[in-house]
Amino acid sequence: MLKIITPYLLFAGDSPYIKTGLGVKDWRPELCVAQMRYPGNEATFGLPDMSFEEAFAAGARTVLLGGAPPGGGLPESWVKDLQQALKVGFDIASGLHDKLNDNPVLKPLAEKLGRKLWDVRTVDRSFPMGQFEKRPGKRLLTVGTDCVVGKKYTALAIDKEFKSRGMASDFRATGQTGILIAGEGIPMDSVISDFVSSAAVLLSPEAAADHWDVIEGQGSLFHPAYAGVTMGLVHGSQPDAMVLCSDPTRTRIAAFELYPAPPLEECISRYTEAARLTNPDAEVVGVSLNTSSYSAEDAEALLKSTSDALGLPCVDPIRTGVAAIADHIQAVK
Amino acid sequence: MLKIITPYLLFAGDSPYIKTGLGVKDWRPELCVAQMRYPGNEATFGLPDMSFEEAFAAGARTVLLGGAPPGGGLPESWVKDLQQALKVGFDIASGLHDKLNDNPVLKPLAEKLGRKLWDVRTVDRSFPMGQFEKRPGKRLLTVGTDCVVGKKYTALAIDKEFKSRGMASDFRATGQTGILIAGEGIPMDSVISDFVSSAAVLLSPEAAADHWDVIEGQGSLFHPAYAGVTMGLVHGSQPDAMVLCSDPTRTRIAAFELYPAPPLEECISRYTEAARLTNPDAEVVGVSLNTSSYSAEDAEALLKSTSDALGLPCVDPIRTGVAAIADHIQAVK
Repeated sequence: MLKIITPYLLFAGDSPYIKTGLGVKDWRPELCVAQMRYPGNEATFGLPDMSFEEAFAAGARTVLLGGAPPGGGLPESWVKDLQQALKVGFDIASGLHDKLNDNPVLKPLAEKLGRKLWDVRTVDRSFPMGQFEKRPGKRLLTVGTDCVVGKKYTALAIDKEFKSRGMASDFRATGQTGILIAGEGIPMDSVISDFVSSAAVLLSPEAAADHWDVIEGQGSLFHPAYAGVTMGLVHGSQPDAMVLCSDPTRTRIAAFELYPAPPLEECISRYTEAARLTNPDAEVVGVSLNTSSYSAEDAEALLKSTSDALGLPCVDPIRTGVAAIADHIQAVK
Repeated sequence: MLKIITPYLLFAGDSPYIKTGLGVKDWRPELCVAQMRYPGNEATFGLPDMSFEEAFAAGARTVLLGGAPPGGGLPESWVKDLQQALKVGFDIASGLHDKLNDNPVLKPLAEKLGRKLWDVRTVDRSFPMGQFEKRPGKRLLTVGTDCVVGKKYTALAIDKEFKSRGMASDFRATGQTGILIAGEGIPMDSVISDFVSSAAVLLSPEAAADHWDVIEGQGSLFHPAYAGVTMGLVHGSQPDAMVLCSDPTRTRIAAFELYPAPPLEECISRYTEAARLTNPDAEVVGVSLNTSSYSAEDAEALLKSTSDALGLPCVDPIRTGVAAIADHIQAVK
């Protein structure tokens, strides 16, 4: 499993697309010391602008590529600056498709200097295969009607809520932004298919009976391309509790227009059915909706009608917080 | 996708474990020219023993490692002989865990000579992501209650039966032995999890309306470790027809004693449910049981009672053949 040394210098370079870095800054502000932007780039993480030398002196130890390069690949100008970062003493972490470890300049330099290049999309090929006995400790997995419906955000919010109540809890990251936020995790969509369930076991190991792992979900059982990843993650996670995440404005699977968005009732039934293979106590304990495009009044009405129809707490993590789900979990789990 | 040049010289070396080669010999005798064994090895494919030079002169073009080395890895003696095979003009194909392409002797020699080393467990990292529209042509997928319940054998038998009836049919291999039998295919358990469904699309492309792809299944939706692979293969395959394979003597999932073997009725329901995401016409059209440990009388009784209970043809491909399933498919599909 990856384990990145923090805190971070968030690097935006000349990128206006800085969603990854913003996610890290929002959820782990204590890990973010400074930012570096090229002149003229107005995208900001809201951190002090520093040079590599200044940020290192301020305690930062890893340069996190917090923005996506405009062209997709790693620009020459970034490579030049990142060489400098390695020389100053930094490791570098990236969620980009172009791997740092494939770069003909950065890779040998990092090896020579003893620095680490973290490509958080890549992963070991294999994981130890256990017997899938029920592990001690409690686990919550966010699941979805589709991709990009708030599974990561909801898991982070629930982990934060648990901690604020004095409960023992860890957020377990399964995608690149989640990993950069947590500093560790396993990018499930990059694991060899045979090992997804085993990787999920490793991600949320045996723990104290009252400890919660709050696991970031991936994909959807109703997605024609990605349901296999979801299924493996559900089985290996052995969730006691699942929170179903959805975007109520979506009528089709995103980018797969031939496929309808599934009804919430059917999702609850299918996720429960799948999860009970490895944990007979698995159940859906709440629903998380992204109501950002609704008026306050409409959002409230939708959350209430959904909650009434399903008999489960229904929240928008940004609008209402996740306290109602945490209350329910404390009552029933 | 892999595409191996045939016919084969089946190489057993000093291995008594030659199941892979026997599978190829059983299903594709026309691809098997000769065998090579070390003195004292009594395991046989029932082919003429030849030297590399003789087999090459007889038309063989690829040395297929048809036996598992006693120690697991690739023995020095094999490496020495395989160098000779490359020099004579052969490519080499292997389903072993130890990759030919990682071998420090064979890899550079093959490159220098322009020969191919086929490691049929390895695969390209990514596959083009389509829209999962329903592809023309018909598809049959074998599915299972568990691993090692006859999915490959059943698919090969149905493909053969279809061809004998003059139907257009291709066997589509998804595991290493199947790939060595077919000469091409995709090892689904080695594909990056994100791409399993897309790989299955590539494996059984658009075809004539009356053409059948008979696809080798993998894993089981009821397997705690491998259900994700199965789910991805089901969705990408878009099967019109599924044949459920089972070993009736098994009460637990093989090597996972905590997990019960699922009832056939539940399997039919769950596979149908899963497959209908990408093909609303998907249905289970028959059951294939391995009754090898039963008496003829008991086997007949079991096949009949299973068929009656499920309302589907129920066969043992070795004992009864698969004609009853082909009849049913021709009647309903």
